[in-house]
Amino acid sequence: MSLTKKPATGMKDILPEEMRIRDYCISVIEKTYESFGFLHIETPCVEHIENLCSNQGGENEKLIFKVMKRGEKLNIAEAKNENDLADAGLRYDLTLPLARFYSNNQAQLPTPFKALQMGNVFRAERPQHGRFRQFMQCDIDILGEPGNLAETELILATTTLLSKLQFSNFRVKINDRRILKAMASYAGFDEDKTDAVFVILDKMDKIGFDGVKEELISNGFDEAVVNKYMSLFDEMKKENDETNISSLDFLNSKLEGFIEEGAIENLKDIFDSVEAAKSADCALFFDPTLVRGMGYYTGTIYEIEMAELNCAVAGGGRYDRMIGKFTGNNTPACGFSIGFERIITIMLEKGFKIPGESEKIAFLVEKGINGERMGSIIKEASALRNEGKVVLIARMNKNKKFQKETLTGQGFTEFKDFYKEEMKF
Amino acid sequence: MSLTKKPATGMKDILPEEMRIRDYCISVIEKTYESFGFLHIETPCVEHIENLCSNQGGENEKLIFKVMKRGEKLNIAEAKNENDLADAGLRYDLTLPLARFYSNNQAQLPTPFKALQMGNVFRAERPQHGRFRQFMQCDIDILGEPGNLAETELILATTTLLSKLQFSNFRVKINDRRILKAMASYAGFDEDKTDAVFVILDKMDKIGFDGVKEELISNGFDEAVVNKYMSLFDEMKKENDETNISSLDFLNSKLEGFIEEGAIENLKDIFDSVEAAKSADCALFFDPTLVRGMGYYTGTIYEIEMAELNCAVAGGGRYDRMIGKFTGNNTPACGFSIGFERIITIMLEKGFKIPGESEKIAFLVEKGINGERMGSIIKEASALRNEGKVVLIARMNKNKKFQKETLTGQGFTEFKDFYKEEMKF
Repeated sequence: MSLTKKPATGMKDILPEEMRIRDYCISVIEKTYESFGFLHIETPCVEHIENLCSNQGGENEKLIFKVMKRGEKLNIAEAKNENDLADAGLRYDLTLPLARFYSNNQAQLPTPFKALQMGNVFRAERPQHGRFRQFMQCDIDILGEPGNLAETELILATTTLLSKLQFSNFRVKINDRRILKAMASYAGFDEDKTDAVFVILDKMDKIGFDGVKEELISNGFDEAVVNKYMSLFDEMKKENDETNISSLDFLNSKLEGFIEEGAIENLKDIFDSVEAAKSADCALFFDPTLVRGMGYYTGTIYEIEMAELNCAVAGGGRYDRMIGKFTGNNTPACGFSIGFERIITIMLEKGFKIPGESEKIAFLVEKGINGERMGSIIKEASALRNEGKVVLIARMNKNKKFQKETLTGQGFTEFKDFYKEEMKF
Repeated sequence: MSLTKKPATGMKDILPEEMRIRDYCISVIEKTYESFGFLHIETPCVEHIENLCSNQGGENEKLIFKVMKRGEKLNIAEAKNENDLADAGLRYDLTLPLARFYSNNQAQLPTPFKALQMGNVFRAERPQHGRFRQFMQCDIDILGEPGNLAETELILATTTLLSKLQFSNFRVKINDRRILKAMASYAGFDEDKTDAVFVILDKMDKIGFDGVKEELISNGFDEAVVNKYMSLFDEMKKENDETNISSLDFLNSKLEGFIEEGAIENLKDIFDSVEAAKSADCALFFDPTLVRGMGYYTGTIYEIEMAELNCAVAGGGRYDRMIGKFTGNNTPACGFSIGFERIITIMLEKGFKIPGESEKIAFLVEKGINGERMGSIIKEASALRNEGKVVLIARMNKNKKFQKETLTGQGFTEFKDFYKEEMKF
C-alpha cells in the first residue's frame, strides 16, 4: 500500500510557528480561568454512539465520525445500517461529554462545579477554507448554580481572558431565550413555530430589518403578526443608549403576562454586576435579535463580537435541562465557549508577539569533534538552558552563512561556533 | 435512546486533581524540551487508513480504531471487509504521524528538525486495570541528524526532564540493534530467525540467564549455537563496572567481522559525551540484553528504568529507514518517548505537590445580594486574581461549616463571607 503525505481529509498539521501561539494561549487560558476557580477536566475524544446520537447536538449529529465495532462484535454480512456497525464516535462538542462527565463523577466534584475544558472536537463538514474537521474547543461551564452569579462570572472570566490575549474593542451581546419566546408569543406566533421565526430573526445582521420582515411573510407567517413582531424591534431601536438597557424596561411593561416572572429583572441584575465589576474593555449590550442556534438553551444567551472583525469570538448560554437527561435530576448549567481556532487565526494574522520569550542561542559544532569534547560543549549549553535560555546545538553546515541566516529567521539572536581544532589566536 | 454515564469502554474521565498534575507536567515538558531547541508540533488524531495499515506499527496495527466512511462513500450492502467501510482510523502512536508530517511539511522545517509531540493515541486493547484505550504520548525526535549528537541530546533532554519532575535514582540502559544482530550472527543463528531470538532474550529480566537459555533450546535452536550465544553474555557479566562499558571493548574484538564498522565506537562516543555533560542523576549503562520491541529500529536503542519501581519510564532509538517510506529519500531519525501516563500514575501515588501553587481564597456570598453589590464583590475578587491568586466566588450554603471544610479539602486556605445585610459591629 502506498503512503499518503497529506493529513486526513479536512484536517491539518500544526507547524511550530502556530503551535507556539497555541501553547501560549492555552497557558493564558489555564491561568486566567483557574484564577476564577474553574477546574480543568478532560473527557475522552471517543464517546458511546448512543450518547452522541441522543438529539442533544442538533445539526452536529449529522456530522459525527463513527468508530467501527471491532472483533466478533463487527458483523458486516448482517449489518443493515450504520449503527449496526458502529459502537462509538468522535465527540462533536464538549458540552454533551461534560453532561456525561458530571453525571458520572458528581460525587467527587464540588457544588457548584466550575469546569474548564480544552480539547479537540470532530465534525465531518464539507472541507472548506479555514474550517477543519478537527478543531480545538475551549469551554467554561458552571454546573449547579441557578442564579446569575454564574452568568456574571462567565462573562467576566471570558472578557478578562480576551484582554490578557491583548484583544480590545469587543462587546458582549446578551439576550434571553425567554425574552425571544415572549416577544414571539406577544406578536401572536404559534408556540410550535417559534424556532422557524428565530432562524429568520438570526439573519438580522446579514439581511437587515426589512429583510427579516419580508422573509417572515414569504415563509407564510401572518402579515399582521409579523408587523406586530417587527414593531417591537422598531420601537426598541428608537432608544439608542450604549447598552440598550432601556429596551429591557420597555419590554418589561410590554411583555407582561407573556414572559416568565423575573426573567428581565435577572438580565438587569447581570448588567448591574458586570457594570460594577468590569475592567475597561468589557461593554455589555442587550441585543433582542441575538438567537444562538443550539436548541438546548433555556435562559440567558450571549456572544462576544469583535468590532473590527464583525465576527463572534465567543458564545454561550444557560442550559438548565441537559444534565438531567443523564442524572435524572435537573441541574442548572451555564457555559461560555471561546472560538479558539478563530482567535488563533486572528493572532497569527496580526503577527502576535509572545511576551517574555526566551533568548535563543545556537551552538554550531564542526563535524568530527570527539565525544568528550562534545560533552563539555553540551555542558556549556546546559548551564545556559538552566538560566532559562533556549540553546540549539547543531552540526555546522558547509554553508555556515546560510545556516545562520536560517536560524536568525527562526528567532536565534546569538551564535557560538565550535571547531574541531581549537582556534589559536 | 438511553444515555450512558460511563466513558466509552476502556477510556477514562480525568478529574481535576489528576488534571492539575498533568497540566503541570505538560508545562515542565514544554519548557524543558524547548530549552533544548525542540519545536512543538501537532498532527490530527485521525490518519488515513492506508498509512495506519502500512506495516510500520507492528502489533499496534491490530488495535486500530477504524473510522467509518460517510455519505455516499459508505456502501454497506456491497462491503465485504472492514477496509471497504473505513477510510480513516485513530493514530496508535506519534511516530508514524511524525514521518507523514515531516514528508508533508519538510520544506518549511529546519534541518535537522527537532520535534516535540504531546498527544493522545488510541489502541483497542482488552480493557485492564491501569491501561486505557486512549492515552497521552510524549515524544521527542531529531530528524536529519545522522551522528550521535542526536542520541546524546535526546538522552540529556529526557533525563533533565525527569530530574525537573523530581525523579531521581533512574538509569539509562543503552544498546544497539547492530550489536544485537552481530552477537546473534557470531553465535551462528540464521539471520532470518534473529527476531525470534530477541523476543526470548527480551525476557532476561523476568526469567533470567538460565531461563533464556532453556527457552532458546526448547524453541528448537541448535544447542551449540545457543551455548556460544549465552557464553558471550556470561563473559560480559564477569566484568562488573558500573557502566558496563568494558563489555563494549570485549565485544569490539570478539565481534570483528560480524559488526558494522563504527557501531561500537559510536556507542562509546555517546558514553563519553553524556559522561562529560551529565548532571548528577543520569547514569548510563550498556545493556546487551536490551531489545525494545519495534521492528523499525536500525541502530541505538535505549530505555530509562526507575530503580525503586523496576519499570521503564522512557524508551526510544534510532530508526533511519522509516521517513524514507514517505519521502522516497532516507532521512536519519532518532527519538525518545516518555511514558507519560506511567509518570502521572507514579506522581499521583507519591502525592506529588506542585511547587509554587497559587494561594486559594473563597468568597462566600449570601443569597439575595443585589447585582450592584455583587459587582463590587467581584471587583474585589478581580484585584486578588490580578495578583495571581485563585478566588472562588460561591453562594453561601446553609451549612457554612461543612462548605468551608469541603473547600479546605480542595486547597482553599482563606475565606471571606459576604452577607445581605452588612454586619454591624
